[in-house]
Amino acid sequence: MTIYDDALKFHEEKKGKLEILSRVEVKDANDLSLAYTPGVAQPCLEIQKDPDKAYIYTRKWNTVAVISDGTAVLGLGDIGPMASLPVMEGKSVLFKTFGDVDAIPIVLDTKDADEIVETIVRIAPTFGGINLEDISAPRCFEIEERLKKRLDIPVFHDDQHGTAIVTLAALLNSLKVVNKRLEDLKVIVNGAGSAGVAITKLLLSSGVKNVILCDRTGAIFDGRQNLNSSKSEMSLITNPNKEQGSLKDVLKDSDVFVGVSAPDTLNEELVKSMNKDAIIFAMANPIPEIFPDDAKKAGARIVGTGRSDFPNQINNILAFPGIFRGALDVRASSINEEMKLAAAYAISSSVPENELNEDNVMPKSFDKDVQVKVAEAVKAAAIKTGVARI
Amino acid sequence: MTIYDDALKFHEEKKGKLEILSRVEVKDANDLSLAYTPGVAQPCLEIQKDPDKAYIYTRKWNTVAVISDGTAVLGLGDIGPMASLPVMEGKSVLFKTFGDVDAIPIVLDTKDADEIVETIVRIAPTFGGINLEDISAPRCFEIEERLKKRLDIPVFHDDQHGTAIVTLAALLNSLKVVNKRLEDLKVIVNGAGSAGVAITKLLLSSGVKNVILCDRTGAIFDGRQNLNSSKSEMSLITNPNKEQGSLKDVLKDSDVFVGVSAPDTLNEELVKSMNKDAIIFAMANPIPEIFPDDAKKAGARIVGTGRSDFPNQINNILAFPGIFRGALDVRASSINEEMKLAAAYAISSSVPENELNEDNVMPKSFDKDVQVKVAEAVKAAAIKTGVARI
Repeated sequence: MTIYDDALKFHEEKKGKLEILSRVEVKDANDLSLAYTPGVAQPCLEIQKDPDKAYIYTRKWNTVAVISDGTAVLGLGDIGPMASLPVMEGKSVLFKTFGDVDAIPIVLDTKDADEIVETIVRIAPTFGGINLEDISAPRCFEIEERLKKRLDIPVFHDDQHGTAIVTLAALLNSLKVVNKRLEDLKVIVNGAGSAGVAITKLLLSSGVKNVILCDRTGAIFDGRQNLNSSKSEMSLITNPNKEQGSLKDVLKDSDVFVGVSAPDTLNEELVKSMNKDAIIFAMANPIPEIFPDDAKKAGARIVGTGRSDFPNQINNILAFPGIFRGALDVRASSINEEMKLAAAYAISSSVPENELNEDNVMPKSFDKDVQVKVAEAVKAAAIKTGVARI
Repeated sequence: MTIYDDALKFHEEKKGKLEILSRVEVKDANDLSLAYTPGVAQPCLEIQKDPDKAYIYTRKWNTVAVISDGTAVLGLGDIGPMASLPVMEGKSVLFKTFGDVDAIPIVLDTKDADEIVETIVRIAPTFGGINLEDISAPRCFEIEERLKKRLDIPVFHDDQHGTAIVTLAALLNSLKVVNKRLEDLKVIVNGAGSAGVAITKLLLSSGVKNVILCDRTGAIFDGRQNLNSSKSEMSLITNPNKEQGSLKDVLKDSDVFVGVSAPDTLNEELVKSMNKDAIIFAMANPIPEIFPDDAKKAGARIVGTGRSDFPNQINNILAFPGIFRGALDVRASSINEEMKLAAAYAISSSVPENELNEDNVMPKSFDKDVQVKVAEAVKAAAIKTGVARI
C-alpha cells in the first residue's frame, strides 16, 4: 500500500472530510420560533437596516469560501472543478483545525476570468472572506485584483500570498543564521507562476533590492520580448541590473535560490556557482528542484523544501489559517501588504533565537501557537493600516 | 420581551446558527498526507477520470446549497440577500436536524434571472442538490425550470413544492375525515405566487379535476387579459368551467379553500357559501386568511393553518428534509412529480387512521419518523421513475 492507496481508502471511508453542524437545537415549537419563523424576521430586519449587522446575527463573520476552478491543482494541473473538490475540502479542514475558520469549498464550472469574478461577487454576501485556490496564472492575478476592487471583504489567493509569506519567514530566519541582510541579497526566484510572482513582490516589500525572476526561458528583464502581462509588469520592478540569460547564467554569485518550478531544475554545479552561505528553498512538490543532501554537498548552507521529511519545511499551512483568523477577528476589509509582512515576521519569530540553526529555520507545521501569533500580528497590522472595521 | 426580542438576543448569542465541522483529525504529518497533500491527489485523479466518483470521495453526496436572492423572504418581501441570511441559516439548521443533510446558505447579490441561473450552474459541481428559497414569482418558475434543464442534480424550490406537498398531505387526510374524493372536489387556491401555482399543479397531478386559482383580481380563466406568463399557463390547465369573477363569486359551492395569500382574505360569509364539510387551509403567516374559530363558526369542518398554536399545522418542515434525504440517498438526478406525490402520501399516512379527526389531519412537525417515511417513499419513487443513479 502506498500513501496514494491509503488516501483513497481514507477518503472513501470518511464519506467527505467536512460536515455542517447546527449550533442550535430544534426540538419543539419554541426552538423553531427562535431559530426560524417567526422570530428570525427580527435579525433579518436589523440586517436590512444595517448590512454590517450580518456579522452579528449570522455566521458571516467566521465563514470563508475556498474557491477554485480546478485549473492548477497541486502538481496535477488543470483537472477541472469536480476533481479539485477533495483538495478544497482538505484546505477547509486545515482552516478549521488550525484557525477555527468555517471554510466552505466552492468549485466553479468555468475558467473564464470574467465569469469567475462575476460569480464570486454575486455569492460574496454570504462570506466574511474569499480564499482563492489553485487557479492558474496569469488569470489568478487578474481575478484577485478585480475581486479586491469589487468586494469589501478579504480576498486572498493562497497559492500566491500564503507561499510568499512562509518563504519570507524562512528567509528571515536563514539570514540570522548566515548573518546576511535583506538589502544586500541577490535572490533568484525560479518559476514565474502565481507563487513565484507573489514571492518576488513580497521580497521586494520586505526590503530585498535585487530579485531576478526566471521562467523556463531564463531571466525576466525589462525589454525581454513576448512577456505576458504579469511577467511584463514584473520585468519593470525586478532585476535592476537587467541581467539576461539562462537560470545558470543569473544564478552565478547569487545568495538565495527560491524554486517554485519543477523537479531537478537545480544541480550541484549550479549551486556551486552561488555565493558563500547559499540559501536554497527548493519547493517543487513532491520532488524538489534539488534534494537537500545534494545541495549541501555542493556548498549550500541552508536548504528548505515543501516536504515534511526534510528539515526546514516551508509549508503555507503556517500562514493562511492564522491570517484569516486575524483578518476575520477585526472584520478587515482586505489583507494588505503590511498584514502579509506581519504574518511572515510572526512565523519567523516563532522559532526561538537560541534554537535557530541551519536545520531549524521554520517552526513546526502543527504548532498551533504559531497560528495564534500570526493572527495577533495580522490583527495589529490591520488596525494600524486602517482596514480593521471593529 | 416579545418573541422578536428573544430571537434577536438568541441570534446575537449564538454567533451564527451553523458551523463547519472537520470530519478528520490533522495532528501530524501522516494525517496531513492522507487528508491533504500528497495523498489527496489520488481521489482527485479518480474523480477526473470519472466525475461520479465525487460522490464517493467528497461530501458532495450529502451537500445541498440553500440559495436565495432575498426577494421574497417570509412575509417581509424583498429585503435583499444579506438580510435573508438568518433565514437561510435557519433553513440549513432544519435540513441538518430533520434530514441529516449538510446544507449551506448561499445568498446572491443579483435579482436578474439570467445571472442567478448562470451563477448557480457555475457553483453546482460542489453540491448534490440545490434548494431554492424565497425567490419571488414569477422569476422563481423560470429560474427553477432553466436550472432543471441545465443540471443533473435535484433543483427544488421549496416555497413552491414543499408547500404544495404538505398541502396535499393535509387534503388527503381531510378527505378521509369528510369522506369526499379528490376527483369530485372543487378547490379554490387563493394566491397565484410561487406557492399557489405549485399547489395547484400538484393538486392536478394528484387527481383533482376542478381547481380555480385566484389572484387579487379574482379567478384566473382561459381568456383573461393581461396575465403574466405563469398565470397564462395556469389559465390553460385549471378552471375547466371557465368560471369568472371575484374570490367570493367562485368560492360558492366549493369544497376546499387553500389560502397562500394575505391576512383576513376570507370571512364567515364567504365560508358559509361553500359546500357542506368545507375544508379551509388558511396558510398566510403569521396572520391567516381567517382564524380557525371563525371558520368553524361559519360551518367549516376542517381548518388548517401554518401556525403551531392551532390544530392541523401545515408546515413544510415535514417535507423538505426527508425529500432531499431520499433524493440524495439514491443520487437522484431530479425531484419529479411522482417523488412529490410519494412524499405527500407518506406524510398523510404518518397519521394513523384511528387517530384521524377534524383536529388531527397532520403529523407533528417535530416527528422525525415522518422524515424517515418521506425519505423512503421518495427513494422508492425515484427508483421507480428511473431518476435514481445508485
